[in-house]
Amino acid sequence: MAKNSELADELRIKTAERKLFLVNLMASPGAGKTTFIEAITPYLRLAGLNVGVIEGDIASSVDTDRLIAKGIEAVQINTGGSCHLDAYMIELALAELTTTEGIVFIENVGNLICPAGFDLAEDLKLLLSCVAEGDDKAFKYITMYAAAEAIALNKWDIASAFDFDIARYFAGVNAVNEDAPIFKISAKNGEGIADVAALLTEKYKQKFKP
Amino acid sequence: MAKNSELADELRIKTAERKLFLVNLMASPGAGKTTFIEAITPYLRLAGLNVGVIEGDIASSVDTDRLIAKGIEAVQINTGGSCHLDAYMIELALAELTTTEGIVFIENVGNLICPAGFDLAEDLKLLLSCVAEGDDKAFKYITMYAAAEAIALNKWDIASAFDFDIARYFAGVNAVNEDAPIFKISAKNGEGIADVAALLTEKYKQKFKP
Repeated sequence: MAKNSELADELRIKTAERKLFLVNLMASPGAGKTTFIEAITPYLRLAGLNVGVIEGDIASSVDTDRLIAKGIEAVQINTGGSCHLDAYMIELALAELTTTEGIVFIENVGNLICPAGFDLAEDLKLLLSCVAEGDDKAFKYITMYAAAEAIALNKWDIASAFDFDIARYFAGVNAVNEDAPIFKISAKNGEGIADVAALLTEKYKQKFKP
Repeated sequence: MAKNSELADELRIKTAERKLFLVNLMASPGAGKTTFIEAITPYLRLAGLNVGVIEGDIASSVDTDRLIAKGIEAVQINTGGSCHLDAYMIELALAELTTTEGIVFIENVGNLICPAGFDLAEDLKLLLSCVAEGDDKAFKYITMYAAAEAIALNKWDIASAFDFDIARYFAGVNAVNEDAPIFKISAKNGEGIADVAALLTEKYKQKFKP
């Protein structure tokens, strides 16, 4: 863990040189991380930012194949069983990725627990939650919800199919995290994606054009 | 890990004395584990079996409160951050639980990765998957899908809202697991629950009434 943090510190210097803003995208399995990246990429490109993706999975290259087919640069990491990514994996992937001057999404392993504790040299921890998971998740996955610096609540277009109580969801989040902005989005139909893109663009400018 | 297996062996003797059949219920966050237990309990009781629940969560007693309110005996374990349950936690919970002669559901922490590797002295590893997660999960979470001894695919009633391709889902499962029966269910509307109850009842009889 200490070694991971040390390596992350080194990575921060390297990524700053490449003018990369790293987004650690964390979510449950199936919350829609890859679809979200597909949806937000055009907005970021319109704002003049390049987009690259580091795909973390225990096995397979299903998501990387999807992204490359859509013209988005992506590098696959297979953790071989590990339940989260670490800074060493990110270092290897960044060496392979050619992206500069833009946003690199680190699509973490689908898991609301273990990824919260590992520093990946990210500039932003973005939690992608999902109405299909129910409105009570912040009460249970408190470490993840406390660690999140921004939250995008996905599949908002079908919230009514799940009796999703948005007030209860907000109450759960606010109990552990009063700072993270919450965006209601649909990666499928595009709702709210421009707002998340605006946040990332603004944060990129804060970092590199002070 | 070796100590966990040793303790699990001891637990197997104790649970056999109490005529308990333990179901290790594993799933992503929000797949519907608690709703599934609520839905299947009446069927098991009709078959003459008692039902008890061990609830594993990092924090909160949201699910235990729900079950107790519905007249189902439940004991809460808070793992305090750990991403899975272990045999020691089960030992403590079983000492508190009064259920005998029936099914004990161990509702594991919502996580498709870490719980697959820990022996909880269970008689059956039941994976509760969910159409909202997408049809590709077996390709990615291969350890969990390989470990499952039965799979219940939940929220089947709303599969059409997710463009869920059942053929692709089966292909993914079959690539790592040719033995586990797959049940299409809806814990919400009751579809398929009787079939899962029949499987558990049959397995209970095989164990205790040979």
